[in-house]
Amino acid sequence: MKGKVYLVGAGPGDPELLTLKAARLLRSADAVLHDDLVPGQILKMISPGAMVTNVGKRCGRRSIRQEEINFLMITLASANLKVVRLKGGDPLIFGRGGEEIEALRAAKIAYEIVPGITSALGAAASAEIPLTDRRASSAVVFLTAHLAGYKDETDWSLLATSGATLVLYMPGSNYRAIRRRLTFAGLSPDTPCAIVSRATTAEQQIHRTTIQELECTPRLPAPTLLIVGKVIRLGTRAAEILGSQLERMFDHVSEPKPRADATVAP
Amino acid sequence: MKGKVYLVGAGPGDPELLTLKAARLLRSADAVLHDDLVPGQILKMISPGAMVTNVGKRCGRRSIRQEEINFLMITLASANLKVVRLKGGDPLIFGRGGEEIEALRAAKIAYEIVPGITSALGAAASAEIPLTDRRASSAVVFLTAHLAGYKDETDWSLLATSGATLVLYMPGSNYRAIRRRLTFAGLSPDTPCAIVSRATTAEQQIHRTTIQELECTPRLPAPTLLIVGKVIRLGTRAAEILGSQLERMFDHVSEPKPRADATVAP
Repeated sequence: MKGKVYLVGAGPGDPELLTLKAARLLRSADAVLHDDLVPGQILKMISPGAMVTNVGKRCGRRSIRQEEINFLMITLASANLKVVRLKGGDPLIFGRGGEEIEALRAAKIAYEIVPGITSALGAAASAEIPLTDRRASSAVVFLTAHLAGYKDETDWSLLATSGATLVLYMPGSNYRAIRRRLTFAGLSPDTPCAIVSRATTAEQQIHRTTIQELECTPRLPAPTLLIVGKVIRLGTRAAEILGSQLERMFDHVSEPKPRADATVAP
Repeated sequence: MKGKVYLVGAGPGDPELLTLKAARLLRSADAVLHDDLVPGQILKMISPGAMVTNVGKRCGRRSIRQEEINFLMITLASANLKVVRLKGGDPLIFGRGGEEIEALRAAKIAYEIVPGITSALGAAASAEIPLTDRRASSAVVFLTAHLAGYKDETDWSLLATSGATLVLYMPGSNYRAIRRRLTFAGLSPDTPCAIVSRATTAEQQIHRTTIQELECTPRLPAPTLLIVGKVIRLGTRAAEILGSQLERMFDHVSEPKPRADATVAP
């Protein structure tokens, strides 16, 4: 047997949004190093004999430094253990997955990356917001305002005026500062936006507003996501127009029935 | 019993990257309407009694129009069936999920959206490319050049010069045109990029190059994704530097052992 590290995405929160592969790996892991954001119901899927360690870095408290997490992964895999490094969302989106990969490469430890549903996709599904739509936005941007000591070289004004839907990870609760940064970047104050708190969990809350009204909205519990763009407003008006078209369409149908060319699965 | 439509993401290709929820819904669906890109192994998970219809629109052949798909979903759900509309990747990223949601809303059909792993996340995991990295890029953009009859209002030059990682869905095989569009948008010709073909499947191929050399690369089979940005080059050099740091770090360790504060899962 040879030690290996699996960098696994735990998805946005709902335990059922874990992948089949992640569930299989949790059942067979010798050791699991998990983030704070991973829900208890997912941790219950871990085999009872496994060593389970919370290596979460809560809101800057930094109980465990990144170097210590890397050290733990390498040490456990070197001891021939099957290690799952379980990260909220997807390991390669705002998860320091890149840094963990480099540490494993440098230590010549075998590893594999298992993608997970990043929270933007979970939040969009819950809030019923198409992140792209050929009538309103042909691009979506995932960005963050929270970079822990690193200078942010991303130019928000370019992203904001590109016409793309924006999804801001870890926006924090200073909505006034975000409102100012978004309008300074060139977005119209009446651009629709939605704050999604604890997406896909039982405590999920969704608040729809505009950039202008952002600072008047209640502070929702972290983790939150802010979605900004025309796609948010798209749904309602178009549904009304389609409604009348569909009524005419269904006038010609005597009764609902499946298509004749439908095939049955083997 | 009441009819309902589930808009479900089938993930990037590997059947194990389906979510637990998607697998559960496929086992209990009365009818499944699926895209071309959904692999056979996933279709095998569908309950044997279900009606299964391929509603894929192959490379512009348009065997079934979007209106017909909407009509089918509504008709089947109106007949009190549990309908799964199974879409490659995630339903709300370049999947016309928004249009299907509107049709269902307009027809007053109950629906639910189940997110899936979008192919950018699958490709990044396979190619070991961190899509964001606090040292190189604090944003990632998913965009497409293929908009089927709609005018693309997204400004590539803004996105390209923002410093964000770019993931181009459906880039097509005219690599010369893409090279020109990316350099015209302001990206340096030596910007690293990677083409990932059939990500996460047994036929996966990854080709790493630069924007300049893009048109000299072999045409890989569709579906492909093009990832562009500094993050692609990040791994190798940093791993070398870290390697020597880690060697010093491990000089102090007598033998690999788990941390004393590790806890065992209930």
